[in-house]
Amino acid sequence: MKANNMNYLSEIEQLSQADKLYIWHPFTQMKDWLKEKPLIITEGRGCFLKDIQGKWYIDGVSSLWVNIHGHRKKEVDDAIINQVEKIAHSTLLGLGNVPSIKLAEKLIKIAPKNSTPSSHSKTLTKVFYSDNGSTSVEIALKMAFQYWQHKGFKEKKSFLSLKNAYHGDTIGAVSVGGIEIFHEIFEPLLFKTFKAPSPYCYRCEVGKTYPECNLYCLSEMENILLKNAEKIAAVIIEPLVQGAAGMIVFPEGYLKGVKELCDKYNVLLIADEVATGFGRTGKMFACEHEEIVPDLLCLSKGITNGYLPLAATLTTEDIYNQFLGEYKELKTFFHGHSYTGNPLACSAAIACLEIFEKEKTLEKLRKKIVLLQERLKRFFNLSHVGDIRNKGFMTGIELVKNKTTKEPYPLEDKIAWKVIYKAREKGVIIRPLGNVIVIMPPLAIEEENLIQLLDVIEKSIVEVTEKKIT
Amino acid sequence: MKANNMNYLSEIEQLSQADKLYIWHPFTQMKDWLKEKPLIITEGRGCFLKDIQGKWYIDGVSSLWVNIHGHRKKEVDDAIINQVEKIAHSTLLGLGNVPSIKLAEKLIKIAPKNSTPSSHSKTLTKVFYSDNGSTSVEIALKMAFQYWQHKGFKEKKSFLSLKNAYHGDTIGAVSVGGIEIFHEIFEPLLFKTFKAPSPYCYRCEVGKTYPECNLYCLSEMENILLKNAEKIAAVIIEPLVQGAAGMIVFPEGYLKGVKELCDKYNVLLIADEVATGFGRTGKMFACEHEEIVPDLLCLSKGITNGYLPLAATLTTEDIYNQFLGEYKELKTFFHGHSYTGNPLACSAAIACLEIFEKEKTLEKLRKKIVLLQERLKRFFNLSHVGDIRNKGFMTGIELVKNKTTKEPYPLEDKIAWKVIYKAREKGVIIRPLGNVIVIMPPLAIEEENLIQLLDVIEKSIVEVTEKKIT
Repeated sequence: MKANNMNYLSEIEQLSQADKLYIWHPFTQMKDWLKEKPLIITEGRGCFLKDIQGKWYIDGVSSLWVNIHGHRKKEVDDAIINQVEKIAHSTLLGLGNVPSIKLAEKLIKIAPKNSTPSSHSKTLTKVFYSDNGSTSVEIALKMAFQYWQHKGFKEKKSFLSLKNAYHGDTIGAVSVGGIEIFHEIFEPLLFKTFKAPSPYCYRCEVGKTYPECNLYCLSEMENILLKNAEKIAAVIIEPLVQGAAGMIVFPEGYLKGVKELCDKYNVLLIADEVATGFGRTGKMFACEHEEIVPDLLCLSKGITNGYLPLAATLTTEDIYNQFLGEYKELKTFFHGHSYTGNPLACSAAIACLEIFEKEKTLEKLRKKIVLLQERLKRFFNLSHVGDIRNKGFMTGIELVKNKTTKEPYPLEDKIAWKVIYKAREKGVIIRPLGNVIVIMPPLAIEEENLIQLLDVIEKSIVEVTEKKIT
Repeated sequence: MKANNMNYLSEIEQLSQADKLYIWHPFTQMKDWLKEKPLIITEGRGCFLKDIQGKWYIDGVSSLWVNIHGHRKKEVDDAIINQVEKIAHSTLLGLGNVPSIKLAEKLIKIAPKNSTPSSHSKTLTKVFYSDNGSTSVEIALKMAFQYWQHKGFKEKKSFLSLKNAYHGDTIGAVSVGGIEIFHEIFEPLLFKTFKAPSPYCYRCEVGKTYPECNLYCLSEMENILLKNAEKIAAVIIEPLVQGAAGMIVFPEGYLKGVKELCDKYNVLLIADEVATGFGRTGKMFACEHEEIVPDLLCLSKGITNGYLPLAATLTTEDIYNQFLGEYKELKTFFHGHSYTGNPLACSAAIACLEIFEKEKTLEKLRKKIVLLQERLKRFFNLSHVGDIRNKGFMTGIELVKNKTTKEPYPLEDKIAWKVIYKAREKGVIIRPLGNVIVIMPPLAIEEENLIQLLDVIEKSIVEVTEKKIT
């Protein structure tokens, strides 16, 4: 027994050491990582994760915003195993494969639709696959750009994006990003874009207060379009919630207003629903809340129930048609990744969508959203909670040094990280964004676990931010 | 029976129709696709693919250069199923997971090493995961760029790449690309780079003949470095073979020469082995042929035995160390994708590497390469074969309208596509690059199937290009 224990411990040690020796973690200051004892996950079940020491945790951020129906979901596991027994991968360059077709059909069926009958050409009807959110955005940007070139609007070579935007980490995606600490250093590599204010009401960039502002930030966007629409191919936004910026929730009417401006000024709208898609906001897609249909829709994360890398860029007949021509005209969209339309990932995604129907996931979610929103109110009483932002199952709690002046905690305090480590001791895994505590459990989380998660987070915030008082 | 047949046929029809209705295929002129009867794959086994009609084909391009040990490889299937039964995905943002650690250790063990003892800081020791070749390249570019910024070489903001290069389809990867029909239209979105001549001996850009040229193309690269090295962060190349350009094989000494220039002029070297890695050239990595070690190594495609999207950017201790610092210094590499280090894909990759050892894949490949090279000689007798380029298991046969003048077939002839369709009738799936017939079967292909593949391709070329004569 003892010997076994020894071996077991030594394997843990070996793994921790090997992680530090060989892996460069994403979005991680590795100097900090090297000082810590890394938490290494070996198993999952439902909304729980187990580490190599055998300790279980609530997965409070859905393994980074991807998990929907829980880990080890039988239907998704089975879908992958069944597909492995046929073929794991076959290319979409010149060939088709069955799961990619079935999934495309399903995605088009659930895609946002106009409530009023509109021309077919503006309906989302085509699926272009890739592997992650960044590439789904790159594809949307390149399609929008090339669309106008083919149409003869040669000057439409730029984009309009929002401050505080995050669309991924490849150079095109960074170019339309607006988070300074992520994006600023790469400025010489980026293409120039127009930037409209972020609808960040808690710290309004244009110094107004909602709703008296009448969405003044929208009129700033209109000013840019008024002067520059003939140079702008598309507006790109994260509809309803700017996720990576700290769950900045749009004021009501903003999203619809953006769509109206796009129509008015003849620019395309790219909706990046990589984070908001697949039920996160309470509806299948965030666009549905304000009944808009974008020209290009970027999807990833939840698409495979958080199992496998897969992304899709959906677009309209109108855009697709502009790329049709004789081969020698070179109107082809010359873009593709080796694993585009990967059958294993598509099979997981089909199973994920079937569960939405079978288990009425969105219907069941409603009650949980109400519970969450009720329970979140208590956080307002905490002396360092400045703002609580929520839309559906996306929540950000902004911690501030001074609640009255909204003075932020300085970066070096790593205040949110302290809360996260405290929560970890109490059996909860979450990950912050700057000074914002993010709460994003799988949609399938049981009510009792949701309450448990919120209790731990509340206690952890209190213990970290109010420790000098108590 | 009849009714069953009807249903079966109707399912085929439905799938074909749905593919055309909903899917936008990568690198495909969809007008052509809509006219054809699509070939839809349902199953694979070894080096064979089965379509929905039940017909089997030799997979002559490894499902787009990704498959190594064949489809339905038991060890890889089992690895995926075993991992599904633990957990499909857990994030590397703030956490570790077991398969990503084990794979990183394996990758570092097999990475190209200096034959002479050199300082540890220039050895490849760190793995940064992502999902596809494009992102592995974006990561390398951003790391190289940020490295020099941290080091205080603020002017090193540009890159040197080759004409005819292909490094992927995201904006950063396109910026260092050099294939006009893919990349030209996006020029306004790209960052500017320095371009050195492609070592394309059959159509030498600098008008010389190898070996009398003494690698004149290298001295052109040196001229650029001589004048601009202080502005250049890195040279990026596909070592040994420019794949997408049509399997352009470097003349001997060119690769080593590039590495020497990088050292001489103090610029980093990025080796994009997305296509050449994992045995394709006859050694595990193309860099080994000329015993060079790059500062950044991009891997994808074969890494998972062609099963699942996964990529890795390997780098040195020297580069990694430049990103260490206090959190508030913001030296962190702010880059990451949701599925970075996906446990399922990493498990497939571990199994893939174990098979290389267990089955002595590279040793067995040697005999097959000799057979291939012998058999390829016969193609020189064909009246429209201009050039045959081969390195290991990467082969390109360039078809020309006029063998003496090297006049290419015009684009609208789609000559290579005609060959590909002819081969398809004869039970072989291949995919061309412009006028180049690409032959890239799984490394595990049996000798008899390799001969069969080459026979079909030869016959197909003859039937298409010499039909007027016969």
